[in-house]
Amino acid sequence: MLLPSWIKTYQTAQLKGDLIAGVIVAIVLIPQSMAYGLLAGLPAEVALYSSVLPIILYTAFGSSRTLAIGPVGIMSLMTGATIAELGISNIDEVINAANTLALLTGIILLLMRAARLGSIINFLSHPVVSGFISASAIIIALSQVKHIVGLNITEGLAPYQAITHIVTQLPQGHLVTSILGVCSLMLLWWFKGPLANLLKKRAFNPNSIKFISNSGPLIVAVTGTLVVYYFHLNTRFEVSVVGYIPPGLPHIILPNYDEQLFKQLLPSALLIALIGYLESVSIAKSMAGQKRQKIDANKELLGLSAANVSSALSGGYPVAGGFGRSMVNFTAGANSPLASIITACLVGLTLSVLTPLFFFLPKAALSAVIIFAVLPLIDTHTLKHTWRYDRTEATLMLITFLTVLFINVESGILAGIIISIGLYLHRSSQPHIAVVGQVGNSEHYRNIKRYKVKTDKEILAIRVDENLYFANTNYLEDNIMGLVADNQSINHIVLICQSISFIDTSALQSLSDILYRLEKANIQLHLAEIKGPVMDKLKDTEFLKKIGTENIFLSTHQAITTLQARR
Amino acid sequence: MLLPSWIKTYQTAQLKGDLIAGVIVAIVLIPQSMAYGLLAGLPAEVALYSSVLPIILYTAFGSSRTLAIGPVGIMSLMTGATIAELGISNIDEVINAANTLALLTGIILLLMRAARLGSIINFLSHPVVSGFISASAIIIALSQVKHIVGLNITEGLAPYQAITHIVTQLPQGHLVTSILGVCSLMLLWWFKGPLANLLKKRAFNPNSIKFISNSGPLIVAVTGTLVVYYFHLNTRFEVSVVGYIPPGLPHIILPNYDEQLFKQLLPSALLIALIGYLESVSIAKSMAGQKRQKIDANKELLGLSAANVSSALSGGYPVAGGFGRSMVNFTAGANSPLASIITACLVGLTLSVLTPLFFFLPKAALSAVIIFAVLPLIDTHTLKHTWRYDRTEATLMLITFLTVLFINVESGILAGIIISIGLYLHRSSQPHIAVVGQVGNSEHYRNIKRYKVKTDKEILAIRVDENLYFANTNYLEDNIMGLVADNQSINHIVLICQSISFIDTSALQSLSDILYRLEKANIQLHLAEIKGPVMDKLKDTEFLKKIGTENIFLSTHQAITTLQARR
Repeated sequence: MLLPSWIKTYQTAQLKGDLIAGVIVAIVLIPQSMAYGLLAGLPAEVALYSSVLPIILYTAFGSSRTLAIGPVGIMSLMTGATIAELGISNIDEVINAANTLALLTGIILLLMRAARLGSIINFLSHPVVSGFISASAIIIALSQVKHIVGLNITEGLAPYQAITHIVTQLPQGHLVTSILGVCSLMLLWWFKGPLANLLKKRAFNPNSIKFISNSGPLIVAVTGTLVVYYFHLNTRFEVSVVGYIPPGLPHIILPNYDEQLFKQLLPSALLIALIGYLESVSIAKSMAGQKRQKIDANKELLGLSAANVSSALSGGYPVAGGFGRSMVNFTAGANSPLASIITACLVGLTLSVLTPLFFFLPKAALSAVIIFAVLPLIDTHTLKHTWRYDRTEATLMLITFLTVLFINVESGILAGIIISIGLYLHRSSQPHIAVVGQVGNSEHYRNIKRYKVKTDKEILAIRVDENLYFANTNYLEDNIMGLVADNQSINHIVLICQSISFIDTSALQSLSDILYRLEKANIQLHLAEIKGPVMDKLKDTEFLKKIGTENIFLSTHQAITTLQARR
Repeated sequence: MLLPSWIKTYQTAQLKGDLIAGVIVAIVLIPQSMAYGLLAGLPAEVALYSSVLPIILYTAFGSSRTLAIGPVGIMSLMTGATIAELGISNIDEVINAANTLALLTGIILLLMRAARLGSIINFLSHPVVSGFISASAIIIALSQVKHIVGLNITEGLAPYQAITHIVTQLPQGHLVTSILGVCSLMLLWWFKGPLANLLKKRAFNPNSIKFISNSGPLIVAVTGTLVVYYFHLNTRFEVSVVGYIPPGLPHIILPNYDEQLFKQLLPSALLIALIGYLESVSIAKSMAGQKRQKIDANKELLGLSAANVSSALSGGYPVAGGFGRSMVNFTAGANSPLASIITACLVGLTLSVLTPLFFFLPKAALSAVIIFAVLPLIDTHTLKHTWRYDRTEATLMLITFLTVLFINVESGILAGIIISIGLYLHRSSQPHIAVVGQVGNSEHYRNIKRYKVKTDKEILAIRVDENLYFANTNYLEDNIMGLVADNQSINHIVLICQSISFIDTSALQSLSDILYRLEKANIQLHLAEIKGPVMDKLKDTEFLKKIGTENIFLSTHQAITTLQARR
């Protein structure tokens, strides 16, 4: 049988946790999906369609047991921005573009799987990701303020322009919508904070607390809907509502083939695939680690690919694992992907039966849900810590943050990646090089600048704390030849290789040059503490023949004492 | 006084070496310059103008005592290609473009100096440079074959096209020119090989041998000129000759200011500046090292900048330090920049008095000189050695070589740089991670896969042989969590940090995550052998507070024994 392994090993004891988690996640997911759909500029049903098949397909191919797949904030933002750039307004075309984007995202993830490119996310460093997520969260939150206060603001404004518009146009805002929006925000805050604390004090069962405090978005949606319905706010005060959602499960349809559209969407799809993969894998890893489970990066690519392709075929848009939802799933006790399947069934049930209830759901309430979902992502804590640990990296974070905020997501991430690689190369191109001497009468040799040590005026012992490769060969040569020029009395140099894990061709050439120049200057080069794998590669080279086995030592101490004895 | 330091310390004993070297270099330089001018598609006088002022200005600002500045092969090739792309045929415009290119090159070098970007050449790895030089040498040699056999072949053909053309059109070649060309090649070969050996056997003075064998190009030029002159080959058989060279020293004129031209030339000027700088610094370093002298990369930038700007102002084209010439200068005994000044004066004298003699100099002889100058640059030796040492790097070399040969110099170098950085990142993103155990009863801990060692089933000691940074944090996490999943009996992990010279923010976050996950799995993390500079940065972090000072050990042995005692 080709059943996923978790089915074969399923135990009935796991059922309770899966059931509770599945229900709670559905309660969180339904209003959140619709809100993210709004953020992406798509009808609510598109977002709900993205929360049925993708969840089920992921459980068949992905490796995480608790990752909650569905629409997520940053990808909704990127989808919205990508579609806005196409300049189309016909709603069918917009939906087709969203489906196509999901299809391309799925295909790219599949190609990444085929090329085993799972490790590509390694090049997104922590400061870059943190700066990018914080800036995206601010953009998402700002984009919702207009719904909260009922303003019509042109799409696609830069955040600083959006702020100016909102502030200057606030007096023209829609009073009733604003009251609804602000009340929704307050209700959400009350559920997350005061209510949860109250229940804790009353010693409620932790699962009940989770259930109740996570129902905030649902209660806000229900309350908002009821208020609009009873007071006819949509007709009397023109409060924006979700409106008609076609009832029933999604149909399976292939997006229209449109080569022009494919080309236009491709760059965004690449980035959406990368970000979705990054987000999902980080969440999945963090949960798996806590239960001594493993996440297979390549299986994740396959799972996410299947989720996105199925989203495309069932009328949805790009999906990934959501942080908040997955945490709810994990902490509510989900033991297996069955929890996710239960969630998907509940969303399907909602689509089949409950869509008429969403007609009066005010958009202001959904915007409040989004704002509450993304605010925790604004990460000043990491900035503070990074600033204290390494100012260069904190600057990198700020550059990424500001570029995403003031230019766009693509430029921000690209700038961040290029700068972080540049920084690393710069660091490793100027390795720490120490002249060492003997500590007392021990066999230890330490930096002459940090310790009181004995040195021999004819022998210079040099320790290089980095692999030798093309970018630091010149630095190494300059330093060694500089030390030679500064120490005219030396006849021997001992190069200590304990921190050198590989030597590339450029560095090998450089070592040969150093050897040659030292010979011309009547200085003998010696090597000490070469690691096994490095020696394996060196042993057949001309360099090693030229230097001679008698000049290669196991330890620094052995080198120094042997050289002193040879005099 | 602002005189260069070498003047203040000049000793009369140095004069003889400088005089001899200065004269020999002039003998090599004059025909070589004219040949390189031909390669660049420029009149002979432009190349000679590039060999007067630039040499003198370099001695005032550069740091090498023996670098021989002037036209060089690869830069002439690049200059020729750049000007050909402009699609101009008026000779005055061509010369103005060459002057402008030299000016831009000089300005770029000055800006690099101002930004202290001397270390930028570090990113040209040895395989990339070697592949690029070999391919360039082949292109240069091939470009001269048409002059040798007297064929008219369209400029700007890819090398494989040029070969096809030459082979198919050989029967239409010019017989008299071919005879001249082939005789020139044979004469040059005889001077370099058989004659030098003969003189050595006769126990001639080494300086005389150098003088005579290096006169090959001069003798070829003189003989060729005499033959053409006596037999009227230029009028009777239409043999191409250098023709009229305006007598006299160059005038100082600023190139025309033409913004459009500046923009067109800028990308090439950037690359020419980079390559010229790379070539000069490598040669200067290799010579300085042999005499325990230092080369200052930033002074070199200034010296080369001055040389190029003065070349531009005196009607020349981009210049750099030439390998062959500098070696001639160095081995002929040049002690100071005075040798270069003597060379410059001799070129100046030639321009003032001897230009009428060059009228009948056949271009075929000059092409023979170029071919002999560049053939030694085709570097199969390095390819062979690199292949044996590291196949990936040998492949990189071949990619660079083929891209330069079949596309162009710019693409080849760019591809080489990007691939070599990618390779390095790939390498360091998958560091060597070893589980270690105790060797016998010693305090040494070695890889359990390489040595017979004792391990403790509750304690896992892991050594990571690389700095921890963003590109390898996932690899580290996966490996550690993988080892945890494979060793369900462990309660302690000791991370041995002897090869870790820095930990960036991403890696710090990753270590915190690992610590957190291990705690959830009831495993305590310990650190051993942290280096001083790493500890300095870590000591104020939350990570170190969370791990606790009692879990940080000086040595691996101390860690293991303490943990065993605590049980």
